[in-house]
Amino acid sequence: MNMQTKLENLEVGYDVPALPGMDEADIQTPCLVVDLDALERNIKAMAAFCRDMGVRHRVHGKMHKSVDIALLQEKLGDAVGVCCQKVSEAEVFARGGIKDVLVSNQVRDAAKIDRLARMPKLGARTIVCVDDIDNVADLSAAAVKHGTTIECLVEIDCGAGRCGVGAGQPVVELAKAIEAAPGLKFSGIQAYQGAMQHMENYEDRKEKIDIAVAMVKESIDLLKAEGLECDIVGGGGTGSYYFEGNSGVYNELQCGSYAFMDADYQRIRDEKGDRISEFENSLFILTSVMSHAKPDKAICDAGLKAQSVDSGLPYVFGRNDVEYVKCSDEHGVISDPNGALKINEKLKLVPGHCDPTCNVHDWYVGVRNGKVETLWPVSARGKAY
Amino acid sequence: MNMQTKLENLEVGYDVPALPGMDEADIQTPCLVVDLDALERNIKAMAAFCRDMGVRHRVHGKMHKSVDIALLQEKLGDAVGVCCQKVSEAEVFARGGIKDVLVSNQVRDAAKIDRLARMPKLGARTIVCVDDIDNVADLSAAAVKHGTTIECLVEIDCGAGRCGVGAGQPVVELAKAIEAAPGLKFSGIQAYQGAMQHMENYEDRKEKIDIAVAMVKESIDLLKAEGLECDIVGGGGTGSYYFEGNSGVYNELQCGSYAFMDADYQRIRDEKGDRISEFENSLFILTSVMSHAKPDKAICDAGLKAQSVDSGLPYVFGRNDVEYVKCSDEHGVISDPNGALKINEKLKLVPGHCDPTCNVHDWYVGVRNGKVETLWPVSARGKAY
Repeated sequence: MNMQTKLENLEVGYDVPALPGMDEADIQTPCLVVDLDALERNIKAMAAFCRDMGVRHRVHGKMHKSVDIALLQEKLGDAVGVCCQKVSEAEVFARGGIKDVLVSNQVRDAAKIDRLARMPKLGARTIVCVDDIDNVADLSAAAVKHGTTIECLVEIDCGAGRCGVGAGQPVVELAKAIEAAPGLKFSGIQAYQGAMQHMENYEDRKEKIDIAVAMVKESIDLLKAEGLECDIVGGGGTGSYYFEGNSGVYNELQCGSYAFMDADYQRIRDEKGDRISEFENSLFILTSVMSHAKPDKAICDAGLKAQSVDSGLPYVFGRNDVEYVKCSDEHGVISDPNGALKINEKLKLVPGHCDPTCNVHDWYVGVRNGKVETLWPVSARGKAY
Repeated sequence: MNMQTKLENLEVGYDVPALPGMDEADIQTPCLVVDLDALERNIKAMAAFCRDMGVRHRVHGKMHKSVDIALLQEKLGDAVGVCCQKVSEAEVFARGGIKDVLVSNQVRDAAKIDRLARMPKLGARTIVCVDDIDNVADLSAAAVKHGTTIECLVEIDCGAGRCGVGAGQPVVELAKAIEAAPGLKFSGIQAYQGAMQHMENYEDRKEKIDIAVAMVKESIDLLKAEGLECDIVGGGGTGSYYFEGNSGVYNELQCGSYAFMDADYQRIRDEKGDRISEFENSLFILTSVMSHAKPDKAICDAGLKAQSVDSGLPYVFGRNDVEYVKCSDEHGVISDPNGALKINEKLKLVPGHCDPTCNVHDWYVGVRNGKVETLWPVSARGKAY
């Protein structure tokens, strides 16, 4: 895709919030702004952690849904590929040039299975999770039909209480069925403990992950006894990567939020009780004050159409004197006790939860040194099928 | 726009969730499904209420963000035009053929004001709200520059605590400034009491609206004394339209959610303490079960990327035996105590809050008699500027 050619046809304020070369001050709000320096530091920092721990990093593309950022994570962060949650999303990454794509989720619908089986023809290694024996036959038939190979990870529910089979024997049975099925290849285990990622207390997270690691280890040992090796033992997120990375059991991490960070992940604490500080805020919702009819209250233009508040309200970056206190469809109410804010003043909001916030926007405006350097589409926005 | 021609190029499961002519059973999930019969009944019902009350209806386009539905509301519901919240959104409606568009919000940024001043050239009467005298000069200069007329409503804060000036003299002062400014025309009052729309108790809502109506009446009387007539006295929503409509003060309603309905609006009660029943659920998030590894828990494919949960979780339409109990990024957890749900079984979810839910989807799949009849783009999705 020749982005530059396409961008020329787009109108600022209608199609796009900005164009490369513009001053940061001229960006149309509300929109997502990425501090490119901070993003690059985050990507490099996680790469260094993975190198030190001796694990691979398959970045979670569901967070940013951006081909450009995934390619940057390969270039600067040694990412081995991408994971994402839906087939339509995986197709975006495969079409965009990512050569190794894991759908870290179940795919059950016949049309979706057929699409998945065609994905290797886009040039991408194609991996999917399985938690039900009935799924194996369907995946196999589609792969055979298209003459492709679908690699399968057995998903273990290691505490999230969502998809996944129990550890141990159920894993072995599924793995054997996969390995026996034409067109499929057993490639390992998916064991993401999603429920503990956001627990604030370090010891609480550690307790949960210790259980998860034990479940995974038991399963790997049983698989080995049957002659089944795990190429991938995957899991881990921004709230836990050091646990899985140092476990000696996991070999592939799947972190997403670390690249952008958000208010919710910033609430979690490290071993010493301090806020985790290894990653910076690189993602902001840029917003403008558009009404200040009451002296102590400013109204900004970023409401529910510009973010998801499922994990709480955003906070105003770099300002202790004002606070985002209420969110309605199109407006944010900002408490401004000193009347400090002016009409059209721009504020950077750190979203409560980055993933679903990114999914309501079409573009990332990449800024550096006060200038718009790049415009990246949220390539897989709306690809929920 | 020749939709049919464009649709031919779109791939089901990647670009679109369905195509016209398909069986309802073949729709790719998750997506928004509209029961066309129910939608049409809602539109006609509100038109009848407005006729009976003798008020106009300017439908709120921010809810559905769809040109097709706005045109249907004109055709079947006697809508006099559209209101919406952002300039980029207003441009979508104007370009789509809506001839009377109110931005029921403040527009302060210079680039946005310039766009607004050009909107009449798209063939649309252009109206905007004002709550600050400084805004009048900016709007006027832009209208003069482009040789157009921007009509202005003075916005009163009648209890929502957001934008808007106080009632009475501040309204008169702003109105006089508008009327005196070249390129501008004073056209009336905007007085939407957003904070009370979702109060469950009828008497609570009535108490709040009585205050609002009194504020508006006081302002109108003062304006009249100065020789300023209000062409538009606008406000009202799905939770209050009968109050404003019967007030003898408002002459234009601005209802949005009534066309689709959602779980939050269904919680409000009428005078007798019953749920309001004049509008039906016509909007659903169609979702599929994609994992059932635990006997009492089904996992469906509609999470935070398919809806906004700011006003609570969705409920499963037409089912008392299962309950949507948890929402994460890509998954919904459905309590299924009897193990009734099967893999790939489809469920219709009634969203907690329709407006921001529509804003994460690209398409409405219009269904009737078990068939996909039409596919409507969420035309102004992402138009937040």
